[in-house]
Amino acid sequence: MSAPANLDNLRIILVRTRNPLNIGAAARAMSNFSALDLRLVTPYEKAFREAVSAVGAEPLLAKAQEFSTVEEAVRDATLVVGTTAIGHRELQHELSSLQDAAPRIRRKLMSGRVAILFGSEKTGLSNQDLSHCHWLLRIPTREEHRSMNLAQAVVLVVYELARGQYHPRTKNKLVSPDADMETLARINDALREALDLSGYIHPRSAASAEEKLRRLLLRFQLNAADAEVLLGMLRKILWKLKSS
Amino acid sequence: MSAPANLDNLRIILVRTRNPLNIGAAARAMSNFSALDLRLVTPYEKAFREAVSAVGAEPLLAKAQEFSTVEEAVRDATLVVGTTAIGHRELQHELSSLQDAAPRIRRKLMSGRVAILFGSEKTGLSNQDLSHCHWLLRIPTREEHRSMNLAQAVVLVVYELARGQYHPRTKNKLVSPDADMETLARINDALREALDLSGYIHPRSAASAEEKLRRLLLRFQLNAADAEVLLGMLRKILWKLKSS
Repeated sequence: MSAPANLDNLRIILVRTRNPLNIGAAARAMSNFSALDLRLVTPYEKAFREAVSAVGAEPLLAKAQEFSTVEEAVRDATLVVGTTAIGHRELQHELSSLQDAAPRIRRKLMSGRVAILFGSEKTGLSNQDLSHCHWLLRIPTREEHRSMNLAQAVVLVVYELARGQYHPRTKNKLVSPDADMETLARINDALREALDLSGYIHPRSAASAEEKLRRLLLRFQLNAADAEVLLGMLRKILWKLKSS
Repeated sequence: MSAPANLDNLRIILVRTRNPLNIGAAARAMSNFSALDLRLVTPYEKAFREAVSAVGAEPLLAKAQEFSTVEEAVRDATLVVGTTAIGHRELQHELSSLQDAAPRIRRKLMSGRVAILFGSEKTGLSNQDLSHCHWLLRIPTREEHRSMNLAQAVVLVVYELARGQYHPRTKNKLVSPDADMETLARINDALREALDLSGYIHPRSAASAEEKLRRLLLRFQLNAADAEVLLGMLRKILWKLKSS
């Protein structure tokens, strides 16, 4: 038997959205497809809760949470996926089409929380935003006209996630759930401090080193148990580095 | 691989649309997915050709044809499909979900012209409009919130019809080959020495610790590039631990 994807575990995160109408339209689309957890990272205009295009989605908008950083907004997620129209910059991430991404995300939603990030209308997601993502998805569009309206990108993503029926693989009880982003942030902090103390990171390039480190850790795709072990190791090493 | 649908043969017909922004947004969505034939039956406001939400779809809007009746607008079609959110009236037509409708429409598009009608934001298609339709499609939405934004319904329909057309199966050039076992063994050695020096590993349990470490590293599924980075970090940390 196939089970419908559990969209309760989905967070749609709009980053630096400029137009409150887009927030309203995204909220309505989410509500149509049972994706009810909307998060906003520093929206450009604060008037979004009255967004007129949110017909029927007022309850969802009223519950939408605001955050001042992407890091805080994704903290409880076990998978973070960024969206991109690509073309304009070199990607350092694995990239998946919406159709290929959907079954992967649905599988993750069975046992964990997935955050999907949408950047601002003008500039999309920054490299800093992307450094919080495990991988990226794009909606395949016509070569000559790639730029989609933000809320329309949101509706396609939630539609695609809600559409399919997921055929669960035999549940493997030995597999630990994925590490959450908060634990990964702690690992990141410990590792960075150890590398600072060792002289691996030059102060001048500290910011880019932090992003690189975060991307590296995300590629490891740590499960929760391994993440705790790794964190314990790093803290012990760090303690030694500091005490000597 | 399925053959790409020929969306040249598709007509999207908006009937008595009230909000020109919706016409603009529908045009942009169509342009994103190569559905370039937009028709309007007595739009409520004539200002739609300046619709601001039509970013990149100005050529499509400029070519959009206007008709004063549905009958004229569908005259060259061989299949006419109406869209509905149902619920409020008795249907006299066969009704198909978007997912079931899409392959049928794609088949028709191979050899004929298909018109898809979208009614006004307030009232949908009238019985008079529906009398021109062969059958109806609906987009399955959440029971409690069925009413979709018009342009978002349009984007889902053209996306679903274009499905498979843009399916680059992006071969990922970014994916590095897997790390070889020799490099993993070096990482293992460096990490174990660092943990020894930090007092993480008790001499008594050194053998089992080594095995655990190796399994942990294998679960990371490191690629070759990341493995080199990790090895570099560990060696730097190790050097610092030893030198102090």
